Amino acid sequence: MAAVRIREAEEGDCGDVLRLIRELAEYEKLSEQVTISEEGLRADGFGENPFYHCLVAEILPAPGDPQGPRIVGYGLYCFVYSTWKGRNIYLEDIYVMPEYRGQGIGSKIIKKVAEVALDQGCSQFRLAVLEWNKRAIDLYKALGARDLTQEEGWHAFRFEGEAMEKLAGR
Amino acid sequence: MAAVRIREAEEGDCGDVLRLIRELAEYEKLSEQVTISEEGLRADGFGENPFYHCLVAEILPAPGDPQGPRIVGYGLYCFVYSTWKGRNIYLEDIYVMPEYRGQGIGSKIIKKVAEVALDQGCSQFRLAVLEWNKRAIDLYKALGARDLTQEEGWHAFRFEGEAMEKLAGR
Repeated sequence: MAAVRIREAEEGDCGDVLRLIRELAEYEKLSEQVTISEEGLRADGFGENPFYHCLVAEILPAPGDPQGPRIVGYGLYCFVYSTWKGRNIYLEDIYVMPEYRGQGIGSKIIKKVAEVALDQGCSQFRLAVLEWNKRAIDLYKALGARDLTQEEGWHAFRFEGEAMEKLAGR
Repeated sequence: MAAVRIREAEEGDCGDVLRLIRELAEYEKLSEQVTISEEGLRADGFGENPFYHCLVAEILPAPGDPQGPRIVGYGLYCFVYSTWKGRNIYLEDIYVMPEYRGQGIGSKIIKKVAEVALDQGCSQFRLAVLEWNKRAIDLYKALGARDLTQEEGWHAFRFEGEAMEKLAGR
């Protein structure tokens, strides 16, 4: 099995990350919603006050392999705030390419996010998952996550586009 | 009806905001989960890189009324990131004291959050609500929000405490 490294994304990785963002959206059957560009990802993640942080999972080439490392997964997160518990981390996306699943790469990304969270004083680590994505749900539960929609009844709501402009009176 | 003003919270409002955070947690029947302190709110919201932003709803005294303005509601938000749409705003809490409901104060807070969101280049405005809180759900839907848990099947997951430490190998 090839060696995998989890590291912080660099600006030059944005093209690879965008390729995986699109693959994930296809997997989630919601790809028509993706409007972000590589330039947007660069500007938003690598300025003075980055709006997100990103980890990439990289397959390291075997000795003598002329191919360079290959990015096969990512985890994109940001910091949020709980009025009950203080600083929290929110994992917006996690994705591993299908042909690299079953090797524990997703778990490695999640573990790294938990390390970052604790280092940054976060007491909770949140994420959202689609209810038909049993593979992801089984993984998160096996790693100790609770399903708050099921246990407490939390529903995710969103305003967007025209609704937001109408709200703001524009 | 008394005049209401929605304004950004100041550091000196943290005591009032904490009182309302506790009231909201009681209303949500989850008050045992609140561990935040007034000092924590001050430190996290009013440093150089604030971890959250807060709006307060204030009842202005009538002319000649010796009482000062009274904070009767709040909305606490932070910025998150969508890999599909870019910068987003997340409204963590919104609360209006029961005796001041039915005057449109909640809608005023939501409208102000939408203004901030658009000013900051956010294309989406997210929040979470408990499924038995019909009053809040009816308000959000009337204002144009979509229930993504119902429509697309999103579930909120969370790692916390021991699960996080085990993940991080600590």
